Amino acid sequence: MRKKIPKWKKYLNEITFEYSTPAAKIFDGVLLFLIISSITIVMLDSVPSLHLKHKIFFHKLEWAFTVLFTIEYVLRIISAKQPGKFAFSFLGIVDFIAIIPTYLTLLIYTPDILLILRVLRLLRIFRIFRLSHFLKDVNFLAATLYKSIQKITIFMIFAMVLVILLGSLMYLVEKPENGFTSIPECVYWALVTLTTVGYGDVVPVTILGKAVASIVMLTGFVIIAVPLGIVTNEMAKAMRSRDAHTGICKACKMDGHDADANYCKFCGEKFNAINKKV
Amino acid sequence: MRKKIPKWKKYLNEITFEYSTPAAKIFDGVLLFLIISSITIVMLDSVPSLHLKHKIFFHKLEWAFTVLFTIEYVLRIISAKQPGKFAFSFLGIVDFIAIIPTYLTLLIYTPDILLILRVLRLLRIFRIFRLSHFLKDVNFLAATLYKSIQKITIFMIFAMVLVILLGSLMYLVEKPENGFTSIPECVYWALVTLTTVGYGDVVPVTILGKAVASIVMLTGFVIIAVPLGIVTNEMAKAMRSRDAHTGICKACKMDGHDADANYCKFCGEKFNAINKKV
Amino acid sequence: MRKKIPKWKKYLNEITFEYSTPAAKIFDGVLLFLIISSITIVMLDSVPSLHLKHKIFFHKLEWAFTVLFTIEYVLRIISAKQPGKFAFSFLGIVDFIAIIPTYLTLLIYTPDILLILRVLRLLRIFRIFRLSHFLKDVNFLAATLYKSIQKITIFMIFAMVLVILLGSLMYLVEKPENGFTSIPECVYWALVTLTTVGYGDVVPVTILGKAVASIVMLTGFVIIAVPLGIVTNEMAKAMRSRDAHTGICKACKMDGHDADANYCKFCGEKFNAINKKV
Amino acid sequence: MRKKIPKWKKYLNEITFEYSTPAAKIFDGVLLFLIISSITIVMLDSVPSLHLKHKIFFHKLEWAFTVLFTIEYVLRIISAKQPGKFAFSFLGIVDFIAIIPTYLTLLIYTPDILLILRVLRLLRIFRIFRLSHFLKDVNFLAATLYKSIQKITIFMIFAMVLVILLGSLMYLVEKPENGFTSIPECVYWALVTLTTVGYGDVVPVTILGKAVASIVMLTGFVIIAVPLGIVTNEMAKAMRSRDAHTGICKACKMDGHDADANYCKFCGEKFNAINKKV
Repeated sequence: MRKKIPKWKKYLNEITFEYSTPAAKIFDGVLLFLIISSITIVMLDSVPSLHLKHKIFFHKLEWAFTVLFTIEYVLRIISAKQPGKFAFSFLGIVDFIAIIPTYLTLLIYTPDILLILRVLRLLRIFRIFRLSHFLKDVNFLAATLYKSIQKITIFMIFAMVLVILLGSLMYLVEKPENGFTSIPECVYWALVTLTTVGYGDVVPVTILGKAVASIVMLTGFVIIAVPLGIVTNEMAKAMRSRDAHTGICKACKMDGHDADANYCKFCGEKFNAINKKV
Repeated sequence: MRKKIPKWKKYLNEITFEYSTPAAKIFDGVLLFLIISSITIVMLDSVPSLHLKHKIFFHKLEWAFTVLFTIEYVLRIISAKQPGKFAFSFLGIVDFIAIIPTYLTLLIYTPDILLILRVLRLLRIFRIFRLSHFLKDVNFLAATLYKSIQKITIFMIFAMVLVILLGSLMYLVEKPENGFTSIPECVYWALVTLTTVGYGDVVPVTILGKAVASIVMLTGFVIIAVPLGIVTNEMAKAMRSRDAHTGICKACKMDGHDADANYCKFCGEKFNAINKKV
Repeated sequence: MRKKIPKWKKYLNEITFEYSTPAAKIFDGVLLFLIISSITIVMLDSVPSLHLKHKIFFHKLEWAFTVLFTIEYVLRIISAKQPGKFAFSFLGIVDFIAIIPTYLTLLIYTPDILLILRVLRLLRIFRIFRLSHFLKDVNFLAATLYKSIQKITIFMIFAMVLVILLGSLMYLVEKPENGFTSIPECVYWALVTLTTVGYGDVVPVTILGKAVASIVMLTGFVIIAVPLGIVTNEMAKAMRSRDAHTGICKACKMDGHDADANYCKFCGEKFNAINKKV
Repeated sequence: MRKKIPKWKKYLNEITFEYSTPAAKIFDGVLLFLIISSITIVMLDSVPSLHLKHKIFFHKLEWAFTVLFTIEYVLRIISAKQPGKFAFSFLGIVDFIAIIPTYLTLLIYTPDILLILRVLRLLRIFRIFRLSHFLKDVNFLAATLYKSIQKITIFMIFAMVLVILLGSLMYLVEKPENGFTSIPECVYWALVTLTTVGYGDVVPVTILGKAVASIVMLTGFVIIAVPLGIVTNEMAKAMRSRDAHTGICKACKMDGHDADANYCKFCGEKFNAINKKV
């Protein structure tokens, strides 16, 4: 026999984990505001001049956010249908990481790494994507990227091999005086050039160096087409399959009818909710 | 009973709001020339050396443009079918903003912000897009971007989270002496690198910093594929639906059948070369 | 009665204007070599150190190329079916421009502009595209770009308006001391940033300036999708129409059969050269 | 009569050239580790500070790798079904180049070029692509690029002509004092700008120079669409043809029918759910 869930717990669960009720929407709005404020404080606190002036104020705010996030975390643990599963889910761990650094500062002193952990709070922003009208597109983009990942990995390996070979060639032709002091430096330069970032801190000076640089630039200009082609086509495929699955005609077993079709375009059978298996 | 519109008002309306008559075309041409000239003067007036030399000449021209635009605005208000609706439409407000800054200089002295407002005159250039042979493509591009906006917003939020996390990581690994003085600075650097702009005013110096920079660059090189994929596919969809009008069923007068359909998908009429007007 | 063309003229025409005969292929190869050599000499002659050392040698070579190109031009004029039409065609004018600057140096002394005109010789390289196996793809790419031109023009106007508005905003928020001295300078900076070139000669220093720069960068990162979407889709359309027109079945009047189909996929009619109107 | 292959040779061949057996997988894993380690050592050895400290250690490791790769090469030659064919295949030559430089150092002293040859070991990483679940996508990407190569070549020639012409124009309008000292320098600058790399080591200073730079930037921003469109569409075509295998006709055993065909396009057999094995 299933344990009966008390009414207050059900209500709490609705607020913290659902998104359709008005109470849940207010909760999400407040949470979004708290997350963005918290991150902003972490960022501003890292600016030396502001840190000197508002050190204590930032510290107090930080504790206020931490207490609020702790309350939220406890409420989630209590109201979760499966507390254990929630605690070790991705967002559950992020929730935990979001509050623990501030408490750790009471015990040990390691500001920089803790600071980074607090920035991870930003990941909690993905909760707002639970909002229904976003969800469909988020899933769509995630699915596309997931399907592209193997082809993009192959492209990345290929690009890395190219960058290492071209960087090594550059090490051979360009003088160390111009900043090309070692193969790793040259490979880094080749990456900066191939991705068309082009900082300009290290640039070729000799004619041969400029010739190699030209090859790297043209290569980057053209091979960027590969990940773009992969993502564009996977997205097109996902869109097509989302638009296409409208049902099979019971009479002729053919698929590929438009969503607004009243009759089968192949055998003329009239459609109704029963003959079209969706 | 509808109020009768006088003939001169009808003619004025035709010139200022239509685009097919010869008079309207001349009016549009003159307007285009005035807008571009006016913006050019605003831009040249901001160049210190030219401002010193031609200050009074620019000032006179500015007033000439303002008077002409004021006359145009008054004519539009008079001849508009619904003057109130026009005045508060987007282009109506732009028209108003285009003339008001110059008059305000007579009352108060705030040159810089007023100057920006005068540049907004440029938005009036979109009037020329009323020209019929442009209209179709403008609407097409606008519709595509409008349909892409939600997916691109999601992508932007994701990219911003990525930029903040990678920027924070950079703050952790790279020394402040090399320009990475605070998290906001590092986030700005990460954005400059991810978008492949790469100014080069702040560049990583340590090995770890260069490693993080490499991650940011490769990420930027790959994720740019996402907005491209979105826009390309939405455009493809819009093009397909525009091209899909292949024929109208003689029986039910419905449009939108596939080129290879044997039966009308709406009324079940069997197609042949005669019932489908291509 | 048509005038009879002498045999030697026919043969000359074949060599200079055709591309399928062995003699014409050799002629094209030699010409390609001469064009590239000539451009290389023009480029090397502009390098101050090389100019000092090899001035006379370059001068002699230049005259040699000019004499050879003159002979070629005269042969083309003689052998052309319609000499007048050829002389005023695009490639005819390019041929003329390719030789005239060197002769002009005997009369007047204006080295720099003449030098540029000599570089235009490079346009003659497009003659090699007459080579049959290139022609199809050149026409394909040209047709695609031609069809995209109106949409891209609209995009360009929109981008220019955006660049001017964002540049003006930058002029308002960033100090002249940091290089943002006038609106034209700021607009140039906005263009450098939007196109993700990012020279880094002028960069924002204040927080507000960096905020505006971030907007410009993100805008550039996203709007580049528009021309890509346009070209990709126009190319897709051109490819589809090239692949699709295979013929209409005489029995059922349906189109859209694959090139390798033996039977109509709609009515089962057997295809032959006669029932499929290509 | 075929010579009988001894069992040990068969087993060795399986390990070195196949990828499905557990032994072959371990062999591939070890090899991958050795290649990456070897390249890492070559790269680290080029860093002056590390070279000074760990010179002897690196030298010993280098010899260890070389001996291991030599053993592997000998095993491959012995176990290959056609040793001669393998030795002169692409990967066979790469294998040979991977070991020879170290032995050459015993005879002659030419460190830099030899060093580059050792980096070519990286090409051996493509062996891991033999791994079956990668193979399909590698072939897919390779086939796409191969099909795009002619169109991209034409685009490249066109882009090079554009870069030379725009670079020459820049040489005419911008002063040598600002770094635009010769046509080759200007052409290099135009390439840096067109590909949106934008180092910023040489930037236009005069108004005319900035105007030309703007043209180059906008050109680069738009023409990058061409290779992207080519690759995206070739990829789409390859994907479609891979997905098009929808069923085999029971009568003539032919494949490649459209999903909505009623009759086999090769033999005219009427389709039904039974004759088309999906």
